[in-house]
Amino acid sequence: MTAKNTNKLKILNDPIYGFITIPNELIFDLIEHPYFQRLRRVSQMGLSYMVYPGAHHTRFLHAIGAMYLMQKAVRVLRFKNVNISRDEEEAVYIAILLHDIGHGAFSHALEHSIVSGISHEEISLKFMESLNVEFNGKLSLAIEIFKGNYHRKFLHQLISSQLDMDRLDYLKRDSFYTGVSEGNINSERLIVMLNVKDEELVVEEKGIYSVEKFIIARRLMYWQVYLHKTGIVAENILVKILKRAKELAFTGIELKTSTALNYFLYKDINSSNFDDETLSIFSQLDDYDILSAIKEWTNNEDKVLSRLSRMLVDRRLMRIEIQNESFSTKKISQIENEVKLRYNLNDEELGYFFIHDTISNQAYNSVKNQIHILYKNGELKETAAASDQLNLQALSTPVVKHFICYPKGEF
Amino acid sequence: MTAKNTNKLKILNDPIYGFITIPNELIFDLIEHPYFQRLRRVSQMGLSYMVYPGAHHTRFLHAIGAMYLMQKAVRVLRFKNVNISRDEEEAVYIAILLHDIGHGAFSHALEHSIVSGISHEEISLKFMESLNVEFNGKLSLAIEIFKGNYHRKFLHQLISSQLDMDRLDYLKRDSFYTGVSEGNINSERLIVMLNVKDEELVVEEKGIYSVEKFIIARRLMYWQVYLHKTGIVAENILVKILKRAKELAFTGIELKTSTALNYFLYKDINSSNFDDETLSIFSQLDDYDILSAIKEWTNNEDKVLSRLSRMLVDRRLMRIEIQNESFSTKKISQIENEVKLRYNLNDEELGYFFIHDTISNQAYNSVKNQIHILYKNGELKETAAASDQLNLQALSTPVVKHFICYPKGEF
Amino acid sequence: MTAKNTNKLKILNDPIYGFITIPNELIFDLIEHPYFQRLRRVSQMGLSYMVYPGAHHTRFLHAIGAMYLMQKAVRVLRFKNVNISRDEEEAVYIAILLHDIGHGAFSHALEHSIVSGISHEEISLKFMESLNVEFNGKLSLAIEIFKGNYHRKFLHQLISSQLDMDRLDYLKRDSFYTGVSEGNINSERLIVMLNVKDEELVVEEKGIYSVEKFIIARRLMYWQVYLHKTGIVAENILVKILKRAKELAFTGIELKTSTALNYFLYKDINSSNFDDETLSIFSQLDDYDILSAIKEWTNNEDKVLSRLSRMLVDRRLMRIEIQNESFSTKKISQIENEVKLRYNLNDEELGYFFIHDTISNQAYNSVKNQIHILYKNGELKETAAASDQLNLQALSTPVVKHFICYPKGEF
Amino acid sequence: MTAKNTNKLKILNDPIYGFITIPNELIFDLIEHPYFQRLRRVSQMGLSYMVYPGAHHTRFLHAIGAMYLMQKAVRVLRFKNVNISRDEEEAVYIAILLHDIGHGAFSHALEHSIVSGISHEEISLKFMESLNVEFNGKLSLAIEIFKGNYHRKFLHQLISSQLDMDRLDYLKRDSFYTGVSEGNINSERLIVMLNVKDEELVVEEKGIYSVEKFIIARRLMYWQVYLHKTGIVAENILVKILKRAKELAFTGIELKTSTALNYFLYKDINSSNFDDETLSIFSQLDDYDILSAIKEWTNNEDKVLSRLSRMLVDRRLMRIEIQNESFSTKKISQIENEVKLRYNLNDEELGYFFIHDTISNQAYNSVKNQIHILYKNGELKETAAASDQLNLQALSTPVVKHFICYPKGEF
Repeated sequence: MTAKNTNKLKILNDPIYGFITIPNELIFDLIEHPYFQRLRRVSQMGLSYMVYPGAHHTRFLHAIGAMYLMQKAVRVLRFKNVNISRDEEEAVYIAILLHDIGHGAFSHALEHSIVSGISHEEISLKFMESLNVEFNGKLSLAIEIFKGNYHRKFLHQLISSQLDMDRLDYLKRDSFYTGVSEGNINSERLIVMLNVKDEELVVEEKGIYSVEKFIIARRLMYWQVYLHKTGIVAENILVKILKRAKELAFTGIELKTSTALNYFLYKDINSSNFDDETLSIFSQLDDYDILSAIKEWTNNEDKVLSRLSRMLVDRRLMRIEIQNESFSTKKISQIENEVKLRYNLNDEELGYFFIHDTISNQAYNSVKNQIHILYKNGELKETAAASDQLNLQALSTPVVKHFICYPKGEF
Repeated sequence: MTAKNTNKLKILNDPIYGFITIPNELIFDLIEHPYFQRLRRVSQMGLSYMVYPGAHHTRFLHAIGAMYLMQKAVRVLRFKNVNISRDEEEAVYIAILLHDIGHGAFSHALEHSIVSGISHEEISLKFMESLNVEFNGKLSLAIEIFKGNYHRKFLHQLISSQLDMDRLDYLKRDSFYTGVSEGNINSERLIVMLNVKDEELVVEEKGIYSVEKFIIARRLMYWQVYLHKTGIVAENILVKILKRAKELAFTGIELKTSTALNYFLYKDINSSNFDDETLSIFSQLDDYDILSAIKEWTNNEDKVLSRLSRMLVDRRLMRIEIQNESFSTKKISQIENEVKLRYNLNDEELGYFFIHDTISNQAYNSVKNQIHILYKNGELKETAAASDQLNLQALSTPVVKHFICYPKGEF
Repeated sequence: MTAKNTNKLKILNDPIYGFITIPNELIFDLIEHPYFQRLRRVSQMGLSYMVYPGAHHTRFLHAIGAMYLMQKAVRVLRFKNVNISRDEEEAVYIAILLHDIGHGAFSHALEHSIVSGISHEEISLKFMESLNVEFNGKLSLAIEIFKGNYHRKFLHQLISSQLDMDRLDYLKRDSFYTGVSEGNINSERLIVMLNVKDEELVVEEKGIYSVEKFIIARRLMYWQVYLHKTGIVAENILVKILKRAKELAFTGIELKTSTALNYFLYKDINSSNFDDETLSIFSQLDDYDILSAIKEWTNNEDKVLSRLSRMLVDRRLMRIEIQNESFSTKKISQIENEVKLRYNLNDEELGYFFIHDTISNQAYNSVKNQIHILYKNGELKETAAASDQLNLQALSTPVVKHFICYPKGEF
Repeated sequence: MTAKNTNKLKILNDPIYGFITIPNELIFDLIEHPYFQRLRRVSQMGLSYMVYPGAHHTRFLHAIGAMYLMQKAVRVLRFKNVNISRDEEEAVYIAILLHDIGHGAFSHALEHSIVSGISHEEISLKFMESLNVEFNGKLSLAIEIFKGNYHRKFLHQLISSQLDMDRLDYLKRDSFYTGVSEGNINSERLIVMLNVKDEELVVEEKGIYSVEKFIIARRLMYWQVYLHKTGIVAENILVKILKRAKELAFTGIELKTSTALNYFLYKDINSSNFDDETLSIFSQLDDYDILSAIKEWTNNEDKVLSRLSRMLVDRRLMRIEIQNESFSTKKISQIENEVKLRYNLNDEELGYFFIHDTISNQAYNSVKNQIHILYKNGELKETAAASDQLNLQALSTPVVKHFICYPKGEF
């Protein structure tokens, strides 16, 4: 790593971990960069604050928190005699710091409406490559690790796997800020249990119960937080708003928006035409563009757009029904008819006010990115197989639920 | 209180207190009202997140948290045989819930720029009166208590005094979200020590050390958080941006803003012309209007506006110097000249890039709203007099510090 | 409940819950009684402090903590319109407060050595009956509930079932004091999910994930704490010490002990002769009797007794091997021979220095005391059946492990 | 430091700090030594558990916790380019680990009764010297530092000064276990603020508010915990019990005690005759000897001894009155007479049942071991002088209070 310039050494206060030290000057400069500062304006949990009013934390602190855990992981692994060079150390810090930099505002909604066909991981990579040019190639190794091309697999697995520092931070952080304390995981203990075997990340035998508990906590967070029914309604309304806006934009109607949002509404952006200019404008797009526009649209002439926008701004959300079985076509057409009649909607408009979809959750994926347990005798076992009681195999079956949304009360 | 409608009974998750129960239907309806929902979009600590990146909590949860503490206080006082009627109970919950509803976005900056001449307390009162009409007079007693007109003084003191539920919540909450754990106060213990004597709020004798610690914690929060030098710079830049925008607006220049912000920029609002229409538009103004406008203005033709805006958006803030003594006129004119020369500014422009002001902090006010200690023999003493060692008298002298801000590095 | 005498109303500080209020005078008097005060000298976790040095908490605070949770449970159930009379409320507080009063010092070890043939629940009942005489029958209903004879089953289930207040407190408390934070359970949330259906205690549907997490946390506590291998060694040594002492006592050898311990060493106490005098002496027996005696015995002439005692006092414990399969007779006799040879032991002595036994853990018992989930439609399901993914059926199979202990290094 | 033997590397769970790593093999061996293991049986807060029932933590974990904070301090100081050699590091860990090893059971009571004329620091030194022989001189540097003879003063100040690791741990730990959360100090932040100037320990300028808050928290702990009136009664009763026992012993009466306590009761030990044999027996004396004896003495023939002992065992303590002024001789003789009459005591006996003494507390000592603040310009100021508002001078005046104790109710 580069020599320390103490003028630039900074300590950050994190409500969760206390003091976080920025490890060196390059990382300090990356954090100071406008690309990264944008993350201060991108909420980590989108509209979840409508359910959990404490959850206004941003991707900025999550990224730094994940880097903090990575510092712990490096210390633990070196203590266990895993050799990690200074360059690898810096690269893995950069990679985790920037792993989410491509997240748009209300990412999941955005990816289903206006920035479709390109994932946030791809955009993260574009940002990293742009920064690599600006910082004279100093991010090259970080990019190799991020892409999974580096020969020491565990470095990539620390960034992206079922026990990566990303998850260890966001589960803990989201649990903390929502107040759903049962989702709280013991990141410190899980990291203490990590080790490396044949360049792969593994968990030591005595960590098996902690891994089980981590998987159960993750599942609980999914059903109680990430897939909370009120949150699903809010997110689906947001998708519908943006779709409607884009539709109106394509018919040439002028909508009040920020310059950055305007670009993405009136242009058809996908992975093939996402160029440097697009990246530059994307770097200016954050939660404020989206919510400000929606606030303006509450008074838009288009009734679909204004009604949906008002729902979100005043938190007068739709009703939602969720069930394990799919809804019968009979029930669906019955409600569709009621909604059309009651709110005087045509078929096209109905598509915005009757939502019918599924959600799913897979607590643990025993096929992709398995978590391996290292036994004292050197043997490796996949977690689901290692657990003596807990049927993790069952947990690795995705659970699918069906839902419908439609307005309640007055429009 | 009105009968309970269990359909409307809600429990909220708060990261600090755990579960908060909404006490009745009227309060539930007030929380659901768009006026109150706006507080979800108003940050409690303004731009402090630029220093403490975890501090994105909003006035919404603070208001509800203060109501939660009020529920505790009512329970404690009744346990001590202080008679509080059902109507008084409801009124005091409403009053604390709505005490901050008149806060604008980045309130302190706004009050120094575009909504001058009317305090947030006055606007809170306007909101309460408007809601009182809408809810058929059910807020009348709450308003009496809020205004300090009700004969039982302690009810007002629970809402507004040096030991009110407002402070007990915000100090704890701000400490929690900033991660400055030393500012953490033990609200629960302080409330347990409360009592009422001659209809005035008092603290029992054994609570004296807790009161002292509370005052010290408050002082610490002031110097380490509320008056943190980077926060001061950011807030002063924000004031300058809004002043510049208002100035440009008054010369007829068109600025890209939201509809609501436009109203306040292009019209001169003060306490004499703040009417129902103004209130209605004010109720649509939040952090998103301000920050979105500033993001747009980073590309404004006016160099003063665009440069200041860019400073805030990219967090490339000015340098600040703080000291106990006032700055010599010699030093000031020296720096002023350097700044003018370096950045090629005329005198009028200089006023935006060289800021010279004071900050002050009074940890405890031993004259106004004293905290009284109730001794076992029934005697009352003012806290500063009761403390056997701590010189609270000294703490009640305001400390004034002087500061200057000016740009560093490239513009 | 009896009228409040404010002179006797007390608040206790608990590191976990904060302030605990003693609900009334009778309960205050029970806590003050020497029978209950004895629990201040009985460690909750026996010798676990040899593994987890923070775990010195006592049964005294556990019992009071469980009563605190019971107060919460009563409040929650009443809020859900479950009718609980004042008498029932008081009775259920008394029953939970006294449920463990019959625990001896190092209870599990004691029950396997000197107070055999009578369970701690039976002794608790004897204490309650004795107190009932002293308090003129005021404990009668509490005793009915404790014994499970009262017709409202849920009151007994709050005291003794898989989700009783006893478990909700001790799992949380033991996790807190050991520092094994992963065992931390969210007692508050679990209680909020409780309800009563047909006079049986049930958990509401949305609590299913919390119940799962509770079961997993409990399992984790078993393997990482209660069945920690070093703790098993310590406890087994303690059993052997007491057995040896009793054996020596029966041969007429005089051992230095306290008066109370002397009684139980030199007399053969079982459920048939456990009379009032025995109860009175039992009420004087606590951790101090046992450990003081062992400290004295480190210099006893009997080599078996002194060696075992020294192991415990100086924490020079035996080696332990644990495995899922039973040990082969070949391995066992091989080690037995080595130990005999090395430490020069005869066959009888060997029994004290070579321990061979099993431990087992059943995370959830799906047959006895099932946890029932109450669905919104009024239907009831047993938890293992209700969980959509987690194989609780698997968790309800007891896991058995085999272990052997024998000395290491010098004697 | 000696090379690491991974077989002996251990991690301990601490409820406060989480995982604590034992830094090397020598320190591991010191912790394993029976001298140090004894601390597992010595309560940190004596009889305070009679007031704060959670406070059963021991000197064992406090000593290890203080060593943990020392590891943090060494890391912080090295980060600030303070040179600390490997040998100095090990020595300072050993010194802090063993700084309290000479504490007797119920130390303060013991020092006022049976082990008078020799302080626990002197006994700690005797233990260190004995261990230094056993470990072939490896503790020599630690001893030099402990005694304050080493030329780098800050190393001694880390062990013994107003901001030493001893205080930083015990205030935090005692606050944690008592549940008096207001006494909680932010040890981590205080350590981050430490620096070294001219080989003296100093606090950096920005740490001034933290130091103030630390002093206030310490003062609060004194009045609410260490000098809690019920605790004072219990401790004074304990002193009286031991004095009576010693008195009886000197008249040749045989008392039931442990072998170790017997030695100190029947022999007059002081600093001149505290030899190796005494040290060896002292190393066997812990809380269990004292409390077991007192339990036996509840049935002693001597009424003074048995009554006092029963008070402690059954927690039927005396009444206490505390006031700022001294008690009038009139009031004293009045109560003395009442007590004599009521309980039928002669003058000599009265001395055991009427206690009249003072307590005092000095929150900060501005003369001895001052805390120095290091300003950015390199200047040093003493804390009381540096604080702009808080009158620390006032806090450095000892506060003295007067108390009397005498029995209430039946004997």
